[in-house]
Amino acid sequence: MTDTPNVLWIMADQLRFDYLSCYGHPHLKTPHIDALAARGVRFTNTYVQSPVCGPSRMSAYTGRYVRSHGSTWNGMPLRIGEPTLGDHLREAGARAVLVGKTHMTADAEGMAWLGIDPTSEIGVRASECGFEAFDRDDGLHPDSPRQQWSAYDDYLVAHGYESNNPWGDFANSGLDEDGELLSAWLLKNSRLAANVPEEHSETAYMTDRAMEFMEQATADGRPWMCHLSYIKPHWPYIVPAPYHDMYDESHIVPPVRSEDEKDTDHPLVKAYQQARVCQSFSRDHVREHVIPAYMGLIKQLDDNLGRLFAWMDEKGLSENTIIAFTSDHGDYMGDHWMGDKDFYHEIAVKVPLIIADPRPQADSTRGGVSDALVEMIDLAPTFMNALGCKPKPHVIEGRDLTPLLHGEPGFARTYAISEHDYHWSDMARTLEQKQEDAHTKMIFDGRWKYIRCEGFRPVLFDLETDPSEVHDLGASQTPEHIAVRERMEAALLDWATRHHTRITATPAVLERQKKAAETGILIGFWDEAEYHAATGIRFEDLEPVGR
Amino acid sequence: MTDTPNVLWIMADQLRFDYLSCYGHPHLKTPHIDALAARGVRFTNTYVQSPVCGPSRMSAYTGRYVRSHGSTWNGMPLRIGEPTLGDHLREAGARAVLVGKTHMTADAEGMAWLGIDPTSEIGVRASECGFEAFDRDDGLHPDSPRQQWSAYDDYLVAHGYESNNPWGDFANSGLDEDGELLSAWLLKNSRLAANVPEEHSETAYMTDRAMEFMEQATADGRPWMCHLSYIKPHWPYIVPAPYHDMYDESHIVPPVRSEDEKDTDHPLVKAYQQARVCQSFSRDHVREHVIPAYMGLIKQLDDNLGRLFAWMDEKGLSENTIIAFTSDHGDYMGDHWMGDKDFYHEIAVKVPLIIADPRPQADSTRGGVSDALVEMIDLAPTFMNALGCKPKPHVIEGRDLTPLLHGEPGFARTYAISEHDYHWSDMARTLEQKQEDAHTKMIFDGRWKYIRCEGFRPVLFDLETDPSEVHDLGASQTPEHIAVRERMEAALLDWATRHHTRITATPAVLERQKKAAETGILIGFWDEAEYHAATGIRFEDLEPVGR
Repeated sequence: MTDTPNVLWIMADQLRFDYLSCYGHPHLKTPHIDALAARGVRFTNTYVQSPVCGPSRMSAYTGRYVRSHGSTWNGMPLRIGEPTLGDHLREAGARAVLVGKTHMTADAEGMAWLGIDPTSEIGVRASECGFEAFDRDDGLHPDSPRQQWSAYDDYLVAHGYESNNPWGDFANSGLDEDGELLSAWLLKNSRLAANVPEEHSETAYMTDRAMEFMEQATADGRPWMCHLSYIKPHWPYIVPAPYHDMYDESHIVPPVRSEDEKDTDHPLVKAYQQARVCQSFSRDHVREHVIPAYMGLIKQLDDNLGRLFAWMDEKGLSENTIIAFTSDHGDYMGDHWMGDKDFYHEIAVKVPLIIADPRPQADSTRGGVSDALVEMIDLAPTFMNALGCKPKPHVIEGRDLTPLLHGEPGFARTYAISEHDYHWSDMARTLEQKQEDAHTKMIFDGRWKYIRCEGFRPVLFDLETDPSEVHDLGASQTPEHIAVRERMEAALLDWATRHHTRITATPAVLERQKKAAETGILIGFWDEAEYHAATGIRFEDLEPVGR
Repeated sequence: MTDTPNVLWIMADQLRFDYLSCYGHPHLKTPHIDALAARGVRFTNTYVQSPVCGPSRMSAYTGRYVRSHGSTWNGMPLRIGEPTLGDHLREAGARAVLVGKTHMTADAEGMAWLGIDPTSEIGVRASECGFEAFDRDDGLHPDSPRQQWSAYDDYLVAHGYESNNPWGDFANSGLDEDGELLSAWLLKNSRLAANVPEEHSETAYMTDRAMEFMEQATADGRPWMCHLSYIKPHWPYIVPAPYHDMYDESHIVPPVRSEDEKDTDHPLVKAYQQARVCQSFSRDHVREHVIPAYMGLIKQLDDNLGRLFAWMDEKGLSENTIIAFTSDHGDYMGDHWMGDKDFYHEIAVKVPLIIADPRPQADSTRGGVSDALVEMIDLAPTFMNALGCKPKPHVIEGRDLTPLLHGEPGFARTYAISEHDYHWSDMARTLEQKQEDAHTKMIFDGRWKYIRCEGFRPVLFDLETDPSEVHDLGASQTPEHIAVRERMEAALLDWATRHHTRITATPAVLERQKKAAETGILIGFWDEAEYHAATGIRFEDLEPVGR
C-alpha cells in the first residue's frame, strides 16, 4: 500500500444503531457489516449533530456544528462560502467524490450575490456540498423542473422501467394480487415486494456505481475519499424480494416505551407524541407491519456491502482503503411513542460507526470496541488526517479519531452536542411556537443527557440508572439533578459562546495579529525610551505603521 | 423632498459618549453636534457590539452580532458571503458609499476559494465590506505593499507635503522648537500642533470628500447612504492649530476610578490593569497631557461638521437627508485604571448616537432624548427601512429604530450584547489563556451589566446603585446578585443558541418548508383514507414528491 490510503465513507440513511447484529440485534444478522467491525473499530457512542437528514449531513460534510454552518433544517441551503470537507481535501491534492445523496440544497441566492455561475465548476461543486459528484444528475440542477429526477431514474428507464416517476412506481411501490400499483409512501404497503428486481433496486444501483467510481479512480491515480451514500433504509419502507418477507412479527424487538412517558407534563414532548407520525408509529399494527420491511432493507444493504467488500478484496483495493460505515440518524419505530426521528433518544441521535483502517498502525485495535464519546463531525478531520490535509482548527470543530484507531492517546471529548430546528413541524403549530424560537439543543456527557427546549423546561435523562430513557428528570427537584442541570447549562453556554464562525482565523492571520501585538501596537508609549525598553526596538528604526 | 430620503451616516472613531456638550461635558462645547441633536433624537443608551474598531464596525456594517459575522478582532477578515448593509441597499436600488475608513480586512483566501477576482466589481466591494468606496485608494489593495498608503496620503503629497509617509510626518507629527519632527505615536508629543494646517488635516479632508460625494450623488440621482467615517479622535492623539492648545488641565474631568478597583481579585481585570496601555493611562501626567489633545480633536470634528451641515443647508440637502452621528467605541483615558478601549465600562462600550430625520413623521421627536436600549446593529435596519429595503430578519439581528424616531410604539429590547476577543493581547499572554478561550461577552439590561469571562468568574455591575461601575459584584454572595447572575447567564444562553447563522432562511425557503409540512411530508400515513382525512388531498392526485 502507499503512504496515503483512500477513504470509502459509507453512510446509510435512517439506520438505527441497534439494528445490526454487531450492535446486538437478536434477529437481524448483518455478517458483512460485522466482518468490517472485526477488522476495524466499532464505536458505541457516536452522536449526530442533528437527528434529521439535512443538518446532520451538512455537519458531517463540513466537520462543523449545525449552529456554525446554519443549515438547520432539510432544504435550508448551505450558505455559499461555508467550507466543506471536499474543499479541504482538494487543497491537499485529494478528490472528494459523491456516489449517492447529500440532501444538500444549493444557496442559489448567495451564488447570484457573489456572481458565481451555478453551472461553473465551482458552482456545481458548491451546489453539491463541496463534493465532485460522480452521479452528476443528482442534485446538481436544484432549480430545474427535473429537480426530483435522478440518475437512478434514468437508469431505471434505460433498463425498461418506463414511467414518469420510475423511482416511485418501481423502486418504491409494490403490486397487489390484481397487479395494481400500490405506493410505499403509504405504510400499509410496506410488506409488499418492491416492484423492481433486487439487482435494479436503488441500493444495488448505488453499490454498482461505487465500484464504477473506484475503477475509474484507480486509473486516475489521485488519492480519493468516496462518499457512498445510500438512501435506504430511509422511508418509503419497501424492499425487493426476497427481502420483503424475510422477517415477520416474531423478529421484532418489543418497543422501548412506558405508560409514564405518555403522562408527560412537558408541552414539547407531548406535542411530539401528538404529531401524526408519532401517533402512527405508536400503533402496534403499524410497527409490526413496517419493521419487517425496515429489517429487510438493512439485510439487503448488508448483502450489497458484502458484494462490495468482496469486489474490493478481489481488486486489491481493501488493503489501501480506510472504510467507514455509519448512518445520518436513527428511527424511532414507535419507541417512546414516537415515529421517524427529530428528537434525542438514543435510537434517534446515536448512530452506528465502524472504521476499518488497513494501515499497520491500526493492527492493535482490530476487532476492538471504543466507547469514546464521538460526534459525526469527527469523521471530517479523521479523513483529512488520512489524506494528508493539515488540521484547520479555525474551521473544523470535530476531533480527529486517528488516535482511537491507532491505539494511542490524544482523543478526548467531554460533551456531545446535537441540535434541532422544528419550525416547520406539527409541534411548532400545536404550540404556536414562533419559527425563530422553535429549536432544541442536546448536550450529553456519556451519562446525563440534557435537552434544552427554548421556551420550555429542559428534559433530562440519566442513562446510567435509566438506559431506556423513560424517566424524564428535567423537572426533578433532587439536588443532584438540579446540580446536573446547572452544569449542563454552563457547558452549553461555554460551547455556544465559542468562536464557531471565526473561520478566517487562519494560522497566518493569527500569527500576523500576534506579531503586531508583540512588537507593539503603538499605543500607550510615552517616549522613545519607553518604547525601546518594552520592545527592544529603537523607535527611530520603525517602519511607518498602520492604525 | 422625495419619499425616499438619503442617509448620511457619520461615525467618529474612539469618541467617548460623554465628551460632547449635549451629553454633558462641562468644558468641551460641541455646538454643531448639539444642533443636530436639537433637530433629531439623542439616544443615551447605545451600545457597540464589540468595544474595539474592527469587530464593532463589522457589526455596524452587517447589522449582525460579532458572534454571527465572525470577524472577532481587527484584521480578522470578514468572511466572503457575509451579507452587508451595502448588499441589502443595492438590492433595493440605493447606493451604499464609503467616505473614510472601515477597518475591513478582505477575505482573500475565501475569494480565491470561490473563484472571485478581488479586482472585479464584486471583489472590490466584498473587500470594502459591501460599500462602494468613493475613496477608492483606501483599503482596496490589502495585499499590496502600499497597504497603508491612503488617498489622503496622495492628497497631502499633491498639496506639497512630500514624504514617504505624509500621513505620519505631517498629519500625525509635530515639530519641536528646533523644527525636529516628533511623532504623535509617542504620547509625550500629543500637545504639539500637528505638522499640517487644519484645512489639510485628515478630518477636514474627509469632510471635503463627503461634500464631493454628495455633489456627484445629486447629479447621479439614485438614492444613497453615505458612510462618512472619520479616523479621529482615535490615536495618534494630535491636532492642528488652533485646536492643540484650546484646552488644558483645567478642562479635564477627573478620572472615574477607585482605589478598590486596584485590589480586584479578578485575574482578567487585573491583567487588563497590568497591560501597558492601562499602566500608561493610569499615570496622571499621561491623562493630563493627552486629554487636551483628545478634546481638541473632538472640537475640530465639531467645527468640521458645522461646516458640512451649513453646506448641506445651502445645497438643499438637509431637508432630504437623514443624518446619524455616532462612534465605533469609546476611550478609557485612565478611567478605571485603564487606557484605550477593549472592555465594557460605559465609557468604552457606550457611544453617542444622534439621528436627525427630516421627514414630517419625525417632527414630534425633534430635540428629544431616548433612553431606549439601543445596539449599533440597529442602524442597518433603520437605514434599510428609510431607503425602501424590505426587512430581512433571517440576516439582520438589529432592530429598526424608526418607531423611536417617529414617536411610535414598536421598538423593544431587553438586553444589549457586546463581545470581545483578546487572544492577541497582553492579557492573554499574562494569563496564558489559549487563543480560542480568550473571549468575553457583555449582557446589559439597562441596569445590570454582566460580563462573562471564559475561564474566570463573571464581572457584574449595578448601574442603578453604582453608575460609576467601580464595585464589581461578580463574586457577591448576596441572594439578589446570585439571582441576577443566573438570569443573565440564562439570557446569554438564550441569545447564544439562537439561529444567528441561518442566513439562508429566506421568506421563500421558510414558505416552501411550511407548505411541504402542511400538505404532508408523506411519512406516517397508513392508507389513502388517512391521507385524505389529514390533508384534504386525494392521495391519487398527488404529484410525484421528493424525499
